[in-house]
Amino acid sequence: MLAKTDLLAKTLTCTLAQEHIADIVETLNDQDTATIAEVLVALPFERAVEVLDQPELFDAPAALTLLSDERAAAFLSAMSADRVADIVRVLDAPVRERLTARVDQETRTALTRLLSYPEHSAGSIMTTEFVSVPANWTVAQTLDHIRHVERSRETVYATYVLEPVTGALICAVPLRRLISSDSDAVVTSVVPAHKPISVTPATDREDVARLISKYNLLAVPVVDSANRVIGIVTVDDVIDAMIEETTEDVQKLGGMEALDEPYNEIGFARMIRKRAGWLSILLLGEMLTASAMQYFQDELEKAIVLTLFIPLIMSSGGNSGSQATSLIIRALALREISLKDWWRVALRELPTGLTLGAILGAIGVARIVLWQKLGIYNYGEHWALIAATVGGALVGIVTFGSLMGSMLPFVLKRLGFDPASASAPFVATLVDVTGLVIYFGVAAVILSGTLL
Amino acid sequence: MLAKTDLLAKTLTCTLAQEHIADIVETLNDQDTATIAEVLVALPFERAVEVLDQPELFDAPAALTLLSDERAAAFLSAMSADRVADIVRVLDAPVRERLTARVDQETRTALTRLLSYPEHSAGSIMTTEFVSVPANWTVAQTLDHIRHVERSRETVYATYVLEPVTGALICAVPLRRLISSDSDAVVTSVVPAHKPISVTPATDREDVARLISKYNLLAVPVVDSANRVIGIVTVDDVIDAMIEETTEDVQKLGGMEALDEPYNEIGFARMIRKRAGWLSILLLGEMLTASAMQYFQDELEKAIVLTLFIPLIMSSGGNSGSQATSLIIRALALREISLKDWWRVALRELPTGLTLGAILGAIGVARIVLWQKLGIYNYGEHWALIAATVGGALVGIVTFGSLMGSMLPFVLKRLGFDPASASAPFVATLVDVTGLVIYFGVAAVILSGTLL
Repeated sequence: MLAKTDLLAKTLTCTLAQEHIADIVETLNDQDTATIAEVLVALPFERAVEVLDQPELFDAPAALTLLSDERAAAFLSAMSADRVADIVRVLDAPVRERLTARVDQETRTALTRLLSYPEHSAGSIMTTEFVSVPANWTVAQTLDHIRHVERSRETVYATYVLEPVTGALICAVPLRRLISSDSDAVVTSVVPAHKPISVTPATDREDVARLISKYNLLAVPVVDSANRVIGIVTVDDVIDAMIEETTEDVQKLGGMEALDEPYNEIGFARMIRKRAGWLSILLLGEMLTASAMQYFQDELEKAIVLTLFIPLIMSSGGNSGSQATSLIIRALALREISLKDWWRVALRELPTGLTLGAILGAIGVARIVLWQKLGIYNYGEHWALIAATVGGALVGIVTFGSLMGSMLPFVLKRLGFDPASASAPFVATLVDVTGLVIYFGVAAVILSGTLL
Repeated sequence: MLAKTDLLAKTLTCTLAQEHIADIVETLNDQDTATIAEVLVALPFERAVEVLDQPELFDAPAALTLLSDERAAAFLSAMSADRVADIVRVLDAPVRERLTARVDQETRTALTRLLSYPEHSAGSIMTTEFVSVPANWTVAQTLDHIRHVERSRETVYATYVLEPVTGALICAVPLRRLISSDSDAVVTSVVPAHKPISVTPATDREDVARLISKYNLLAVPVVDSANRVIGIVTVDDVIDAMIEETTEDVQKLGGMEALDEPYNEIGFARMIRKRAGWLSILLLGEMLTASAMQYFQDELEKAIVLTLFIPLIMSSGGNSGSQATSLIIRALALREISLKDWWRVALRELPTGLTLGAILGAIGVARIVLWQKLGIYNYGEHWALIAATVGGALVGIVTFGSLMGSMLPFVLKRLGFDPASASAPFVATLVDVTGLVIYFGVAAVILSGTLL
């Protein structure tokens, strides 16, 4: 078994030495942890560090624990600090302590700081390896410095110019402006005097992504309370964060907890836990419909024909609610609307819901009239009143669903939850019980004295 | 009215001249089209071009049509070609023809080419302004050239090195490597001899985003069939595309057509059209439940207690289906799984669905037993059999929902549709009819001879 792994690792190492780093990672992701560990040892050190630096290598933490502490610490010391922090974060406490005790001083200091920031914050995804120069340097000095440190920095395309005494951020100078400027000019003269865009370590990564996208930046500096640069978030960290956020949002919208792991990699027990929670909560909520139906049992027994349309009417409420919710979740995420716009949205969804309800109501009435006239099904002597009940209920329920679905993300956001937790199933469940009440209410008004 | 707009425009122009370009766009987005047009005229020409170049300025096409053709054409000639293509694409045919006849030759050529590529393709979002040099140039020559063209290029952080005779792409050289390399070295010696990453004009923008994210690129070259570079897609175009794709996916997942416009900007009629289509289709689909209920009417009349649990059971099927669908949509989008993995997913969802169904079934049974024993509701003498029916049906429906929900994205993708069209409401509707059949089937087996 070991021999086989060994052979596999050797073959892999040979093939991989020439490959593009991202392709190596893709190949390694298909291997077991032991093979990954062997390949890491067999690859040239610099190359192995590059591979470990890729956040896409899912098994990196597990593979590192299979190595000797000495070698693992050497890798960690050479890797970029933000990636080390991500890895150390998921290690078991004893392994984490053993390894952090052995990494070099610089990495340890950076690590202590990075680990103190909350998950998904700018602090937790920033890199501490950036280029900065004092404001009294010339363009030539700055370029020399960049050439000197280029190999050890994640990006050199922005240089942060600092106040020489306090170290406060004055401006960010793009490399493209530096190379086409006069060598003797002072570095601050290269860019217009804008207040530089910056974030704090506590800024949410989604907000960092929004800034980078809005201002078309390649990196954004993270500053402390004294406006000193403590790190930068680069555009590729932001892209990774955006992809993760989209996955989380889609999964939440589908009515489950976000997985945090690829579909192929997650274990059976974890998968069940992530899905069973919301399913059970929704089932408990949906039990209120059974209670509502029990309450209306007399009506049901008198007019059993009404039961035929219950699924149709309830699902229409859920569907319109799910549309409204997904619209508002996205508009909130893109900052097209904010919390204070809730009444504007409500005023908009009310006529929208009424119109959509009228369209669906017309279809519902048409179906009953058609079936009756064509003799496909006999809804009894009061079929016209039943058609009116179904039509009226659809108007009411679709309107209610649109309003409810659009307001739920606001309520969740106001209460401090992620608006994206307002999943389609969640909205549908909320709307279902009220849907039944609306249906039987409309029935009571229209059918009272005839069927009821 | 005109005077007021005029004053507003003057004030705005004064204030805006100093602002960050992205902030100007944000301010203008809150103004009406006439004001935007006036501000564009009043701003310094270069500044106005910069503003128009931002894809975030939603009203740019409308504002341009308010200007004289001459001025509009001058703006378009100075703007970046990919942005011009986006704007021209949405103009009415007569205006489009008038303006494209007046832009300069270079813009017109680029435009003709860009407009020939399908929407959402690499060709449609690429810029034709990039830096390229022949392979026999030195580092110094290349840097000189970059300095010379820097102002007119969207990005200069990658230089594309071409075979001197055929113009075929040999490699991409990052600026950071150029500035720290020996000036006399040949430009091709600066980077390792990797086959450069490139895409074709027809590549979908989602695939471009995946490449940029996977290889941590700042831009990816778009090549024709002879491997000549015809444009590049930059990381900020990709970020914009990713945000748009996420919005589309979330809206589709909510069961509607993607809006293509911000929630605040879209007109009432368009909003209704985008939402009514799917709602109506889903309602028509859901009408099958009414047919199914009609089919089971005898059973319903004999055992009206069964109707109480219809909403609860149907929604559980929809919810488990919605979870499975959103999981698979995302896993397909991230290429964690591909079409050929459908049976692997089915084999995984089967035990998952059974386990989830067993959990929900147990909760359902517990509810009926509790209500009966606590005297909250009397389900009749056969209450234990009813509990068994509900429990058994939940196992069947949740399993079926998980399988159906996970297979639907594969089916859609196989048929050439976007898997993200498999919305939560769509899956729920598909599962509902079968859910009823499963419920009454289980009931027939368990209750036959007692209630039925």
